[in-house]
Amino acid sequence: MVRIAVMGYGVVGSGTVEVFYKNKKNIEKKTGKDIDIKYILDIRDFPDSPYGDKHIKDFDMILNDPEINIVVEVMGGLNPAYRFVKSCLENGKSVVSSNKELVAEKGAELLRIAKEHNVNFFFEASVGGGIPIIRPMHQCLAANEINEIAGILNGTTNFILTKMIRDRMDFSNALALAQQLGYAEKDPTADIEGHDACRKICILASLAYGKHVYPKDVHCEGISRVTLEDVAYAESANCVIKLIGSARRTENGKISAIVSPMLVSYESQLASVDDVFNAILVKGDATGEVVFYGKGAGKLPTASAVVADVIDVARYTKTNMTLTWVDSDGDVVDDYRTRVRSFYVRATYDAPLSRETAYNKIAAAAADAGVHVDWLSRQNQPEGEIAFTIGRLSENLLMQLMNGMPGITLTFRMPVMDL
Amino acid sequence: MVRIAVMGYGVVGSGTVEVFYKNKKNIEKKTGKDIDIKYILDIRDFPDSPYGDKHIKDFDMILNDPEINIVVEVMGGLNPAYRFVKSCLENGKSVVSSNKELVAEKGAELLRIAKEHNVNFFFEASVGGGIPIIRPMHQCLAANEINEIAGILNGTTNFILTKMIRDRMDFSNALALAQQLGYAEKDPTADIEGHDACRKICILASLAYGKHVYPKDVHCEGISRVTLEDVAYAESANCVIKLIGSARRTENGKISAIVSPMLVSYESQLASVDDVFNAILVKGDATGEVVFYGKGAGKLPTASAVVADVIDVARYTKTNMTLTWVDSDGDVVDDYRTRVRSFYVRATYDAPLSRETAYNKIAAAAADAGVHVDWLSRQNQPEGEIAFTIGRLSENLLMQLMNGMPGITLTFRMPVMDL
Repeated sequence: MVRIAVMGYGVVGSGTVEVFYKNKKNIEKKTGKDIDIKYILDIRDFPDSPYGDKHIKDFDMILNDPEINIVVEVMGGLNPAYRFVKSCLENGKSVVSSNKELVAEKGAELLRIAKEHNVNFFFEASVGGGIPIIRPMHQCLAANEINEIAGILNGTTNFILTKMIRDRMDFSNALALAQQLGYAEKDPTADIEGHDACRKICILASLAYGKHVYPKDVHCEGISRVTLEDVAYAESANCVIKLIGSARRTENGKISAIVSPMLVSYESQLASVDDVFNAILVKGDATGEVVFYGKGAGKLPTASAVVADVIDVARYTKTNMTLTWVDSDGDVVDDYRTRVRSFYVRATYDAPLSRETAYNKIAAAAADAGVHVDWLSRQNQPEGEIAFTIGRLSENLLMQLMNGMPGITLTFRMPVMDL
Repeated sequence: MVRIAVMGYGVVGSGTVEVFYKNKKNIEKKTGKDIDIKYILDIRDFPDSPYGDKHIKDFDMILNDPEINIVVEVMGGLNPAYRFVKSCLENGKSVVSSNKELVAEKGAELLRIAKEHNVNFFFEASVGGGIPIIRPMHQCLAANEINEIAGILNGTTNFILTKMIRDRMDFSNALALAQQLGYAEKDPTADIEGHDACRKICILASLAYGKHVYPKDVHCEGISRVTLEDVAYAESANCVIKLIGSARRTENGKISAIVSPMLVSYESQLASVDDVFNAILVKGDATGEVVFYGKGAGKLPTASAVVADVIDVARYTKTNMTLTWVDSDGDVVDDYRTRVRSFYVRATYDAPLSRETAYNKIAAAAADAGVHVDWLSRQNQPEGEIAFTIGRLSENLLMQLMNGMPGITLTFRMPVMDL
């Protein structure tokens, strides 16, 4: 007999309960077990809920009920989710979570505790919503070294960028529209500054490389500085601008990870991922490029990933799956400024420089550094503004090069996605 | 201790051995077990093989060796693979197979035998090569009703169609190029007539709907009748032509399945899948559209999927996973001619009809049937030729409508992919 407690009855929590009951027969068939939700924990009252007797407000009822073998944590946020999940695992209850903040900050520790207590800690829904990614990376690509991961991991920013690219709506109007449509929150910081995407690339990098990658160690830039001018320049280079979370193993055995808007070539499978959709490209040494695409958020997609985890846990109660990574001492992420790649650069030049003399100066500096430059142009490009792609070089070298040219000032730069 | 026998040392077999030994340490870490390949079965001699002592020619050595707990079947073809796999399962050995013909023809039976003997029968590599699809559909989307599956399941035909679309190469030249590059076999029938794609959609449909769908029951058309004229007409409708295997559940509880070239809108994620790449779109009731993209064939991608299955079997020896479907009495697939959808039609008209009078006749017949028509055009469209999309209606009704217009003759028709 499997009895479940759902902690959190917000969007994902209520979706989880809905998807569970819609599929209950099917789930019992798939697991071969009598399975039901016993408790729904939330501090709020839900007088209209059809699950009246299941609603509780006291976490200890879950912790102390030996019947409960699976706990679903869909509260979000670090506290009290961390304390609750930790206690459940220590008490021999498997946990399924959709909480990317929790997994990104405490994954290694919680996975270790789960292992010690021979229970499972699953979190398929924490990255990519309803897109299968954690388990495929862990199981199906198990015979691959993961060379690189690059993903559009945040639907809100992808919606905003899509509006900027397709409809030439500027950033603030696109953000306002996203808020109006419910895609962005009133305080959109976590989305537009890339923190949400950062948590997700940390989870994927930890999974791929076996060591915990902490968000604080990953350089993270959002999309609030991207302008319609950048969109136009990108287009002239046959690229779109996407917020990309990427991770790869470096030659020194560390992990290079970054979240940043990037120029993405039309040729890439990620270029056509529009609106609130997400996509994650995984490059394995044997399998080559594999892309997973779908809705990265939303009540039912996320809930269905949570319920899929529940089914998997219910099938193998007390078997610790090997999904795991170890804690790291915080010296695992390489300095992003040393990674060699191509960059998009927008700059201004002051009189007495003309565009031609500015070009010449930059071309000469690039030639000295042994790197290639391609000039970009846009409609109504004003005197005093230039843009180009340059590569391949480190950001350190790029900055050194740009700072060494009096009269020319870098105003914006983004990496060019190189896979 | 896990000991493996690999049956078949062709492209996938030698790739499997290569990927296994490259990852051996990693695999032992992931499974927590001492694991090695003991036998490689093939009727051929491999005097230069570094695995001299492992090569054997007698299947009974595998069957009768109690040390062997996992058998990898990468021989291809129905016989003797079927007999070998069946015997292994009956003798309590788990089997991993990349053999789509075997799974499409004998999947239900072999899954039943595996279950009866408490062993596993896995076949991730049988569909989509290195793209994770079987396990994600089975596990990650377990909380979804699968509304529809549509996939580009054959790399050879996708390469040929890409050449026709991008380079305006005609079908025979594109096929010759594919053969030259090793993408198509000397006898390309299984690929270009859709039989390979048909086996794969049968496997996916069986998995999604729980009943064995046999290739003989699925209507299957290849791409050999697709012309550059069709490519041009499709383009004027903002579509590309792709060979699509699709399956969905019908309202009468049966399964509608078909393999056919189809018009695919530029808006679809499948439209940008080019060259030898495959992609599978799965639409779940909760998760919406999810797409899996990658290399659908090739030595290392396929081998890495085989080895991933081996890792999974090794982790849980003797635990029967619930991946399964039941046999069907052959009355599970709906008549494809009853499925209502839009179609692309190319037709000729004879004097005294003019293009305009032909249009008028067709428009009137469509109006009578209550369906919509859009005329298509192409450069250098000759007198006597017309093309259009029409929908939504069944193929039965389309044929009835077209046969009822003297002087107008349908020369080609394809479905328009409707998701």
